[in-house]
Amino acid sequence: MASLDLAESGARAKRSARERRKERRATASHSAPAYITRQIPPYEIVGEEGLVRIENAADRILAEVGIEFRGDDVALELFRKAGAKADGVRCTFEPGMLREILKSAPREFVQHARNPARSVRIGGPHVVFAPSYGSPFVMDLDQGRRYGTIEDFRNFVKLAYSAPWLHHSGGTVCEPTDVPVNKRHLDMVYAHLRYSDKPFLGSITAPERAEDSIDMARIVFGRDFVEENCVVMGNVNVNSPLVWDGTMTGAIRAYAAANQGSVIVPFILGGAMGPVTTAGAIAQSLAETMVGCALTQLVRPGAPVIFGNFLSSMALRSGSPTFGTPEPAAGSLVVGQLARRLGLPLRCAGSFTTSKLPDAQAMQESVTSMLSAIHCGANFLLHSAGFLDGLLSMSYEKFVMDVDYCGALHTYLAGVPVDDNALALDAFSEVGPGNHFFGASHTMRNYETTFWDTELSDNDPFETWEEKGGLDMATRANAHWKKLLDAYEAPPIDPGVDEALLDFMARKKAEMPDAWY
Amino acid sequence: MASLDLAESGARAKRSARERRKERRATASHSAPAYITRQIPPYEIVGEEGLVRIENAADRILAEVGIEFRGDDVALELFRKAGAKADGVRCTFEPGMLREILKSAPREFVQHARNPARSVRIGGPHVVFAPSYGSPFVMDLDQGRRYGTIEDFRNFVKLAYSAPWLHHSGGTVCEPTDVPVNKRHLDMVYAHLRYSDKPFLGSITAPERAEDSIDMARIVFGRDFVEENCVVMGNVNVNSPLVWDGTMTGAIRAYAAANQGSVIVPFILGGAMGPVTTAGAIAQSLAETMVGCALTQLVRPGAPVIFGNFLSSMALRSGSPTFGTPEPAAGSLVVGQLARRLGLPLRCAGSFTTSKLPDAQAMQESVTSMLSAIHCGANFLLHSAGFLDGLLSMSYEKFVMDVDYCGALHTYLAGVPVDDNALALDAFSEVGPGNHFFGASHTMRNYETTFWDTELSDNDPFETWEEKGGLDMATRANAHWKKLLDAYEAPPIDPGVDEALLDFMARKKAEMPDAWY
Repeated sequence: MASLDLAESGARAKRSARERRKERRATASHSAPAYITRQIPPYEIVGEEGLVRIENAADRILAEVGIEFRGDDVALELFRKAGAKADGVRCTFEPGMLREILKSAPREFVQHARNPARSVRIGGPHVVFAPSYGSPFVMDLDQGRRYGTIEDFRNFVKLAYSAPWLHHSGGTVCEPTDVPVNKRHLDMVYAHLRYSDKPFLGSITAPERAEDSIDMARIVFGRDFVEENCVVMGNVNVNSPLVWDGTMTGAIRAYAAANQGSVIVPFILGGAMGPVTTAGAIAQSLAETMVGCALTQLVRPGAPVIFGNFLSSMALRSGSPTFGTPEPAAGSLVVGQLARRLGLPLRCAGSFTTSKLPDAQAMQESVTSMLSAIHCGANFLLHSAGFLDGLLSMSYEKFVMDVDYCGALHTYLAGVPVDDNALALDAFSEVGPGNHFFGASHTMRNYETTFWDTELSDNDPFETWEEKGGLDMATRANAHWKKLLDAYEAPPIDPGVDEALLDFMARKKAEMPDAWY
Repeated sequence: MASLDLAESGARAKRSARERRKERRATASHSAPAYITRQIPPYEIVGEEGLVRIENAADRILAEVGIEFRGDDVALELFRKAGAKADGVRCTFEPGMLREILKSAPREFVQHARNPARSVRIGGPHVVFAPSYGSPFVMDLDQGRRYGTIEDFRNFVKLAYSAPWLHHSGGTVCEPTDVPVNKRHLDMVYAHLRYSDKPFLGSITAPERAEDSIDMARIVFGRDFVEENCVVMGNVNVNSPLVWDGTMTGAIRAYAAANQGSVIVPFILGGAMGPVTTAGAIAQSLAETMVGCALTQLVRPGAPVIFGNFLSSMALRSGSPTFGTPEPAAGSLVVGQLARRLGLPLRCAGSFTTSKLPDAQAMQESVTSMLSAIHCGANFLLHSAGFLDGLLSMSYEKFVMDVDYCGALHTYLAGVPVDDNALALDAFSEVGPGNHFFGASHTMRNYETTFWDTELSDNDPFETWEEKGGLDMATRANAHWKKLLDAYEAPPIDPGVDEALLDFMARKKAEMPDAWY
């Protein structure tokens, strides 16, 4: 009877643990951490000498070729005053000048969320996952590819809010192409503030749209709070190679002047906007990013800024960009080393793929790219969920697949604890050679908290899987995002704040005629 | 005209480079390296103190709980003579004893191939990819899952031979279930020797089958050569937890006595054959593997041996094993650190998944697992290509998908060169801000050798992809493996050697009645 009792009590413990796990999952978006503090070091692949060679190359690009500031005399003048040599719109920089300016940038900072429990810490050992950004198209298995709408935008904000493993609501989670170009930033910022309570990104497509984003944040957080704290950021692209466009530097200046954050990101497809060799693209990236980051500090020393990176390669047969390939995966590791030497928080890589379906290629490339971001020490992982189609499409299925993988990465980043409980010496004494660990007290004690539990991977035996319909992951993901949207409940918002946001939008929209390009 | 000329000459250079690349691909299996010498360091995630804690835990398991040798008095006696304390079939080992014995094991060695150009170096910075091993089932998109046959076995040997990115022919690439259990090792070894000229693994399912494998190798390589050189290895599993089965130790003794290689691998599913905590499973793995490795050295000091590792986790909802999950991915990195401290070549992880289809889940899990093997510093990657279905099925489509990914890993392992050409300073001077690098002389100079070129990922724009049929990767892979099998040509073999192999097989088979279990 003793062994039966044991089996039964084991089964009881198992059932009850399973129920507790299920409960925890149901409330996961409330109990998951606001951000990750990594327990494993970044992966360093290039030695001191190699890093210095790349830094010197960046310095020479800056000193000998320089950067053009097109359409922003204010930015040009700020750099001229700081010591850069200007020749028309082109500036050159003495080695060391930008590094000196960057010393005032914070090594880490908090981006506050509307819900204080969801504020994120960016920099140091901290890791923040945000949805993908900027696709004009959306996709799902039912309707295929189509232009994104504000309804899709809201859906992705809701899905990101529901996702326990995304810490951030992102920015342009898809282009809401049914809203006029000059007004859509208002609807986007409103959606982030209304349908989520996680931190978010504002508009950068024009300096006045950046201002609107900050003004809407002021309505929610209060003017004084925003003056002292980062509550919104702009994600700004270099016009690679070596050009900073006035629209972008205007947005940088708007965010920095308001003490808000900027993410400075070159976009280099090797062979097109940069050389075909990775080290050259990295040197270029370092040069371009240092300039953008320095601009924030010239506008307002101490303004939060993130060193961004975006390397990719090209398919030499078609001339198309490629993503999730080995060159940028290795290159990003080096960029991480350089960002740490600069002492700046890092944005790097993401869940990239050129696949047009949520298939094997999609996850092969995405995992390669995401793990590179994880290993390179990235602090802010924009593009953690949703991309297909060479960044042109946001996929509902891919979104939930990526979110599930972000969950796995939470466990991976927790590393391998080596305390006495983890070493489990008591289990070996109890179990001994040839026996199993199912009912061991060490197993029972650790059962509930051990092993990452996926929502989307199928671990059933073949026969069970077949009985359940023999579905692939994409089909399971299709059912999953629909279930999540059905179950979505908006976070509470003060009705007065909501009304003030809606008033602001209405007033702004009334001031402008619709513009569609 | 000047710019037109430039464009035309650029196009000419591009066309011609494309042709040259195509030619190189056509002969890739001949020009690809016999093995990889990695240019990036392993990734170390646990510090000295943590590693010592795990090593001490392994020592305590060995000293206080011990290992049972079931059904092999010779092995038991070898350890007893070497200083282990035996109590029945259970041995305990004083701390340090096994490490002392292991000092005679080579840090790296060559496994010779029938074609000397394909001999592989195992250990140190070298990386060898081999197909997956041991599945009873095979799968393809046309016929679904079915038991493997000798025809399937030969097909996978042929596909591995055709694969430029696999360095090794593997062992039981699938179970040829249509051949009697007691005879199939002969057909398997013959297939490796006849349809490939890459190095291979012999049988381990009984000591006499290991002997037959070595004898067949002697026919091909010559008795004297085999006495001095490693030409065949056995991949041997611990009966975890803490049991060495006589069949396995018998095989180890056979290979070691003949100066041939052994790969010593625990098989630990956390919660079943080991504790649910990763550090405990690693300590157990270290204990079990050290014993197996030490046995080779007691039989013949200096015999080649590979420190193997196989960690996995369990789906707590179903109790099924899981693969490609974050715990073993992180755990393998630690195992790599421990193997290097022991000074032994490492076999670790592989392309693992529980997916029953070559879908998103399959590559998500496989890439997670493969990158862990790459980062942990594994030298011999058994299971690099083919697995689906929790290791139970070998998939034709997954095989070619994995092979393509192994190609990407060749590029990844080459790291980021930082020589003057890679830094591309001349390109920046030539191109300048705002222009593209397409026709730059640096681009032209590096065009042919830059960027990993995939066989299976689709990088076309959406519209082109749609025109081509809108296929997913699995469907493309289905066409690809058929094309490869159609194009397969056997490597040459000396007719006398072939005849001797066939004679040996016929004689052996005639000696035995068929056994089917």
